Amino acid sequence: MSSGQLPNLASDAVLKQSIPVPEDFQEVKGIDYSKDEAYNMKAVDLIKSMKTMGFQASSLSQACEIIDDMRSWRGEHIDSLPEHERTGEFDDNGFQKTTIFMGYTSNLISSGLRDTLRYLVQHKKVSAIVASAGGIEEDLIKCLAPTYMGEFSLPGKGLRDQGMNRIGNLLVPNDNYCKFEEWIVPVLDKILEEQEEEMKKLGSEGLNADSPAIWTPSKLIDRLGKEINDESSVLYWAHKNKIPIFCPAITDGSIGDMLFFHTFKASPQQLRLDIVADIRKVNSMSMAASKAGMIILGGGLIKHHICNACLMRNGADYAVYINTGQEFDGSDAGARPDEAVSWGKIKSEAKSVKVYADVTVVFPLIVAATFAAERP
Amino acid sequence: MSSGQLPNLASDAVLKQSIPVPEDFQEVKGIDYSKDEAYNMKAVDLIKSMKTMGFQASSLSQACEIIDDMRSWRGEHIDSLPEHERTGEFDDNGFQKTTIFMGYTSNLISSGLRDTLRYLVQHKKVSAIVASAGGIEEDLIKCLAPTYMGEFSLPGKGLRDQGMNRIGNLLVPNDNYCKFEEWIVPVLDKILEEQEEEMKKLGSEGLNADSPAIWTPSKLIDRLGKEINDESSVLYWAHKNKIPIFCPAITDGSIGDMLFFHTFKASPQQLRLDIVADIRKVNSMSMAASKAGMIILGGGLIKHHICNACLMRNGADYAVYINTGQEFDGSDAGARPDEAVSWGKIKSEAKSVKVYADVTVVFPLIVAATFAAERP
Amino acid sequence: MSSGQLPNLASDAVLKQSIPVPEDFQEVKGIDYSKDEAYNMKAVDLIKSMKTMGFQASSLSQACEIIDDMRSWRGEHIDSLPEHERTGEFDDNGFQKTTIFMGYTSNLISSGLRDTLRYLVQHKKVSAIVASAGGIEEDLIKCLAPTYMGEFSLPGKGLRDQGMNRIGNLLVPNDNYCKFEEWIVPVLDKILEEQEEEMKKLGSEGLNADSPAIWTPSKLIDRLGKEINDESSVLYWAHKNKIPIFCPAITDGSIGDMLFFHTFKASPQQLRLDIVADIRKVNSMSMAASKAGMIILGGGLIKHHICNACLMRNGADYAVYINTGQEFDGSDAGARPDEAVSWGKIKSEAKSVKVYADVTVVFPLIVAATFAAERP
Amino acid sequence: MSSGQLPNLASDAVLKQSIPVPEDFQEVKGIDYSKDEAYNMKAVDLIKSMKTMGFQASSLSQACEIIDDMRSWRGEHIDSLPEHERTGEFDDNGFQKTTIFMGYTSNLISSGLRDTLRYLVQHKKVSAIVASAGGIEEDLIKCLAPTYMGEFSLPGKGLRDQGMNRIGNLLVPNDNYCKFEEWIVPVLDKILEEQEEEMKKLGSEGLNADSPAIWTPSKLIDRLGKEINDESSVLYWAHKNKIPIFCPAITDGSIGDMLFFHTFKASPQQLRLDIVADIRKVNSMSMAASKAGMIILGGGLIKHHICNACLMRNGADYAVYINTGQEFDGSDAGARPDEAVSWGKIKSEAKSVKVYADVTVVFPLIVAATFAAERP
Repeated sequence: MSSGQLPNLASDAVLKQSIPVPEDFQEVKGIDYSKDEAYNMKAVDLIKSMKTMGFQASSLSQACEIIDDMRSWRGEHIDSLPEHERTGEFDDNGFQKTTIFMGYTSNLISSGLRDTLRYLVQHKKVSAIVASAGGIEEDLIKCLAPTYMGEFSLPGKGLRDQGMNRIGNLLVPNDNYCKFEEWIVPVLDKILEEQEEEMKKLGSEGLNADSPAIWTPSKLIDRLGKEINDESSVLYWAHKNKIPIFCPAITDGSIGDMLFFHTFKASPQQLRLDIVADIRKVNSMSMAASKAGMIILGGGLIKHHICNACLMRNGADYAVYINTGQEFDGSDAGARPDEAVSWGKIKSEAKSVKVYADVTVVFPLIVAATFAAERP
Repeated sequence: MSSGQLPNLASDAVLKQSIPVPEDFQEVKGIDYSKDEAYNMKAVDLIKSMKTMGFQASSLSQACEIIDDMRSWRGEHIDSLPEHERTGEFDDNGFQKTTIFMGYTSNLISSGLRDTLRYLVQHKKVSAIVASAGGIEEDLIKCLAPTYMGEFSLPGKGLRDQGMNRIGNLLVPNDNYCKFEEWIVPVLDKILEEQEEEMKKLGSEGLNADSPAIWTPSKLIDRLGKEINDESSVLYWAHKNKIPIFCPAITDGSIGDMLFFHTFKASPQQLRLDIVADIRKVNSMSMAASKAGMIILGGGLIKHHICNACLMRNGADYAVYINTGQEFDGSDAGARPDEAVSWGKIKSEAKSVKVYADVTVVFPLIVAATFAAERP
Repeated sequence: MSSGQLPNLASDAVLKQSIPVPEDFQEVKGIDYSKDEAYNMKAVDLIKSMKTMGFQASSLSQACEIIDDMRSWRGEHIDSLPEHERTGEFDDNGFQKTTIFMGYTSNLISSGLRDTLRYLVQHKKVSAIVASAGGIEEDLIKCLAPTYMGEFSLPGKGLRDQGMNRIGNLLVPNDNYCKFEEWIVPVLDKILEEQEEEMKKLGSEGLNADSPAIWTPSKLIDRLGKEINDESSVLYWAHKNKIPIFCPAITDGSIGDMLFFHTFKASPQQLRLDIVADIRKVNSMSMAASKAGMIILGGGLIKHHICNACLMRNGADYAVYINTGQEFDGSDAGARPDEAVSWGKIKSEAKSVKVYADVTVVFPLIVAATFAAERP
Repeated sequence: MSSGQLPNLASDAVLKQSIPVPEDFQEVKGIDYSKDEAYNMKAVDLIKSMKTMGFQASSLSQACEIIDDMRSWRGEHIDSLPEHERTGEFDDNGFQKTTIFMGYTSNLISSGLRDTLRYLVQHKKVSAIVASAGGIEEDLIKCLAPTYMGEFSLPGKGLRDQGMNRIGNLLVPNDNYCKFEEWIVPVLDKILEEQEEEMKKLGSEGLNADSPAIWTPSKLIDRLGKEINDESSVLYWAHKNKIPIFCPAITDGSIGDMLFFHTFKASPQQLRLDIVADIRKVNSMSMAASKAGMIILGGGLIKHHICNACLMRNGADYAVYINTGQEFDGSDAGARPDEAVSWGKIKSEAKSVKVYADVTVVFPLIVAATFAAERP
């Protein structure tokens, strides 16, 4: 620039005037440290402060609001409803409440978050669960032997030599899986026996709708929860509280290994797991719900499965996603709630948010500020 | 610092001497633009240049080397093997070759990568496939109507009003799913009929091992490939070339919707899909393989399922992961190959690499530089 | 697999025995919800529970431990030290304490985290700050007019038409920058005047070491903190408490725009900002420190600058990184602490951790559980 | 669901009709493997095929289109312009062309991409560069000694013991920095001498606009490029071709270490580096440009600096971002081009794209398909 004068081009661009700030605009604000509750803050106060902090702090705060909304919604009294509308969930006083679908990936059960998930099931805070295979078996295995803290950087070869399986910064001794095999084989034997008994009764009608001969992943999981009979277990409480756990790919893990081994032991008989009955079951729950809420922890199958079930009702009413997936690769894991709106999986008027974070970092705080904000 | 003299502390730390550079160290180098082949480079030359570029360029180059290794490995001649070792794959001359498991997520079939995946199946470049539900149905649906380019930022409400479903920056008109329903219902009717016929023959033995009454996801997929009868389809060629496609959670998508609807239509009969037989089938393929190679495109179920199958043989011999997952959240999607080594899912002496990238950006280049480096 | 018998290959691999679990292994555990403090948890209790949760929950807990360690470390009494070792920081009782370098990116000052950062500076919890340009100017601008909550998805064109600048899910009206210009121009005029006065005195020696004619980014920032004279400001308290703020690229933002404009107004005189004196200043602080701790919020320049300063002392003694960068692309932002160990920027025996998270989600919790665990 | 009939709710939602597909919709398509050019594809053909592939493949293709657009744009002939508009860049025939700002982070110069960046500068494909400190010094150091391939997982302690510095999966022997010190100290001595000579002439006017006594980062970089005198160097060609390289935080790395050391050696004299003159220089280039294009490789300072300069012209006309940052944390690195539109840094009618990828994976392909599509 040869001249010594500031061209208008720059000053006009930099000092462009803005419209008056609309009245409903909310100022960005943080924690007021002059207040007593700012010291060693409680979850509820932290979450409140985060609402106007911006970025994922606000998303986290919004997630808590949505969860509180789905928990507190109440509809009609059951007595005021025609017979065919008396579906879904009702509170103790007979009012309609939200059916909450919670999904989680296997690693979260491996982590210490299992206690939090178990708490939610134990106290009937959720209505149905969708998990991946490890989310089923690791809950059972932890009743038999612990998982340990490790490090992300431990070399694989040394670990394999020692029989130590790594999950992120956790370690599971392979003996745990041997113990699991010992525990589950008699259960599978028993279930096969029951299958065969029912088949004997039903013969060629054994595959019919509602056939007691047919086992499904959710039916197997319920049984495993009953058999493990351990109060530290998510499955135990799900069985106790009749909260179905869906896991369409339950063969994709240690239970699958055991079922595979069992085919040799049982031959020529074979235990079967039908997934058609379970898709009917989860979809039907979605359709029966007065309102449907989704709390989805992680990505992949468990996320898609809940969303897809909610398409059957033309969309969930509340949706909270928490995961680290990004949308740029077109993955379902990374898709924002608004992508699900285009599919009719979330209603366009629904309250929804995605929190971009490792679940272990935020979900303890979320639960502390919502489901566990006061004693049960 | 009051004094005017440079303390040794800093200079010792900054100017610390290094050991002599070991002779086998490889210099970082890029493209030599003085060479003719540097202009409008061919895939093979690009990949070669990337080997010493560092970061993911080197990982990409290494992925191609590993794929070339798994493709070119040859073992014993079939005639020199005892009967019980004549398993796995053999080349046209009768020599053992690698059994290649390829996994991909649904979005890749929605993308234009479908043509590349179809090419690999059409020309028998892979031995088995594991896909998620959308990876099955979107292949079929694309034979009925196209998917279109869109944008990541298109608002969901407007799209839902128009019946346009968004997958990242792609759009699928909802009519495509209506066409799919029209196409698949008669197929499901037929399959149910066959199931029931076989059940009539077998009665209470209908669930036994190898029962022809039992349908599994892989059997259904093979049949759909046959029925679609379209050369643009991955499933068609998989059927033609007897390449099994596994999809343990096949109910988690549009096929699941159709199966759900079908339960009402078929009642009291019900089509069943058993996943136990399929876990036996995929694990058996892994155990039968002379060498096992994995090419895993994306994360979640399809990644874990192939790795888990390879545990049955005490580890894959070659492994290429391509996805955008990160290990910090302990997800299986984000786990590095070395985590699978700790589990015995990849051999500790195996060649393995993870390329951190959206598959659509790198897989066309990889295939161009390996499987499609020369005419078939 | 033709045979009906389970090959040993699979069972040996799956049921491989592990070594006895070492005694010092720590079990993965979560929150004990039977305890009273599990309801609406306090920060300190949450963080304690996270220690054995795994994944980033444990990293977060470890970050708090490291911060507590760096805060509580005490060395020799000043009286027991030879004159030339009486450098670095001392507590009120005269004992050596850790020099804490805190770095943050611009967006964190735009967010509500500014109040937390201000709290740390106001109460002298840190010794020096490194920020990017926006981290300086947005602190000042917020004293003139607020920033507002917005949404990540607001289209850019509409916002530009309204003069609303977007930072993630925040909005800054462009008028704020106009107000900033009005405020800063007289200050720049004054500083230029002082520069010129000193130059008149010093003449050709004006560039010499410690020349009062020379302004640097840190000297300018200190002055701006004095001039803004507002208790909500980080810069104000930094000035008050003599905590230097380094910003080597202070021209990269609105202050740079103003300095650019000012060159036209001031011509032929020109305000100058020297960055050599500041590198000497920050490096000298690092060398003078008895122990050095790093708290790095975000990536890029601010991360590298603190690490590089700590190389001058052969490595920091404590390091906490919080950001969302990944190492796969070889970026400094994504590099783990262990990469800095290879450079001598972190001591190999130092305590260090990286928390993979958006800072706004975890830092309020970290501060609540450490610096603000009790009233000051 | 008690009843045996499919409720309309589900079928209406799943089989919702879509609007007729608009005529301008583009089908998703991949590579046509029946064509000859599908084998060992050339860069240009690969990029063309990617256009309709979706996800980042389409973004990559779009990046190439935008680069080709910015390269090929031509405006008025210089003779037809009034004197004061004869600014910016002109082609050999005297027609206006785009001023291209390219930014890159330090790690890319450490990687083998340096040869590609050097190629672009050598052949005057870009007009100005913004780099971080390492992007300057590592270019020079590579003229003195090589960088080597390493691994992401090499432990830091062992490397420090050997004096091997790790950058992702690269290794730089610390001796390289010792060699760099030997090379640069005499240059700094000379520059200080020149500074002092000019100061003697100018006295108290030494800080005035255009004072030859004042060194800036860009002036120092130009001089280093001249002194290194090595055709493998980016800086050498930038000097030769008068392409300015901006680096406002040049003290943030090894050059900073050397400048720090030099303050002790030179005392009481001191070399000064002024960043105000450089902000004027880069902003002026932006304002002078007929059209402005941005190619930004990586995030942080280098990204913001180019965007901010383009605000001075009320927005760039073309913008290509390539990095792995995500928007969820409100970082500038992760911000989409549309955020820059809200600030007036990119024109709302500009062509822009962000490619989410490690630069080393895509930039060689991009350059092969654009700048290096034919021999120069």
